[in-house]
Amino acid sequence: MLEFTLEDLSAADVARLRDIYEPLTASVRELVDATIRTEADAETVAAVKADIDAAVARLRSRQLDGAFGVRHTSSGESMSWGNAVIGIRNALAPPVEVHRDQTGRTSADFHLGAAYEGPPGHVHGGVSALILDHVLGEAASPDGKPRFTGSITLRYVRATPLGPLHAEAIRTRTEGVKTYCAGHISDAEGVTVEAEGVFITPRRLRD
Amino acid sequence: MLEFTLEDLSAADVARLRDIYEPLTASVRELVDATIRTEADAETVAAVKADIDAAVARLRSRQLDGAFGVRHTSSGESMSWGNAVIGIRNALAPPVEVHRDQTGRTSADFHLGAAYEGPPGHVHGGVSALILDHVLGEAASPDGKPRFTGSITLRYVRATPLGPLHAEAIRTRTEGVKTYCAGHISDAEGVTVEAEGVFITPRRLRD
Repeated sequence: MLEFTLEDLSAADVARLRDIYEPLTASVRELVDATIRTEADAETVAAVKADIDAAVARLRSRQLDGAFGVRHTSSGESMSWGNAVIGIRNALAPPVEVHRDQTGRTSADFHLGAAYEGPPGHVHGGVSALILDHVLGEAASPDGKPRFTGSITLRYVRATPLGPLHAEAIRTRTEGVKTYCAGHISDAEGVTVEAEGVFITPRRLRD
Repeated sequence: MLEFTLEDLSAADVARLRDIYEPLTASVRELVDATIRTEADAETVAAVKADIDAAVARLRSRQLDGAFGVRHTSSGESMSWGNAVIGIRNALAPPVEVHRDQTGRTSADFHLGAAYEGPPGHVHGGVSALILDHVLGEAASPDGKPRFTGSITLRYVRATPLGPLHAEAIRTRTEGVKTYCAGHISDAEGVTVEAEGVFITPRRLRD
């Protein structure tokens, strides 16, 4: 059994834990996709369900009481491994891997498959909102301290096809506790969804 | 093997398919949660991963080429079973079951666990956007014909805790191809996120 205080994790510990859990999550993502798309017969589906239930029981034999939360390592690295957008242990997350360039611009390239569908063959409008909320929120937090969404507006330019996509955002200005950001999602043909948001510095991080 | 043209499905066929696939999806939702929360040792996790990979291979032995899409039964019922918010075959969907009352108001009661986390113990702001986009979109479509999000604005009143939640929306007015809707998410203490959106009648459904 792994015995650790997560807050005491070294970089090597984090790498070891990532090697344990990330491949499992990748397999569960495949399972989510296959569960939507399978046309296997009733007997096969029932047998698979029984195997999944057994797997769940083994994983739950030792588990956290609640959600994963956000942990910080001894080197100050943030582990949002349960996060719905970026969590490497969350099979709901594509996951989106957000990069930040020298200007503070955040961006991510990712792939959305069958599990993110709304209109046939296209990304659910709310999924675009989910991802843009996160990418704009990262742009609002260049110091690594979290800012929370105060408000966000999404404008849908055209339907976003399932497949390879790109998202990016910039911080446009800051006024006191409010940080303004703008961004978009695009496919190979150009922008499909635009976003503008106001992000709030939490009370505990204010001067 | 199931051999069918989905568009020819009777109500009994739909009920039979639901009985086959819905329990599998429920088990996969448990697996997603357990994958985030497990503290099982590396050997257990690796063994579970191997079992999941085998399950995926069995399900994929016969599957749809692409995403699920939206099917219509012989009685005109819409099957959005792959949908990211309401899909009963989509383990990413909580799922949200949207009801409509006589006034056209749409509402849903649902539970969000570890897989929907953003800030520790709280719902990711983008997940609230995802669900509100869908619940408002349903309010925009009282005739059962789809309307697509033109724009939507979310205002975050306070952080939404993980757990039992409620969402609802109403259509406020229609101007030509634009239908305006408003709604919110609430917990037992009151409203946490407000939304307003404009939904567009697709060209093929216009008079």
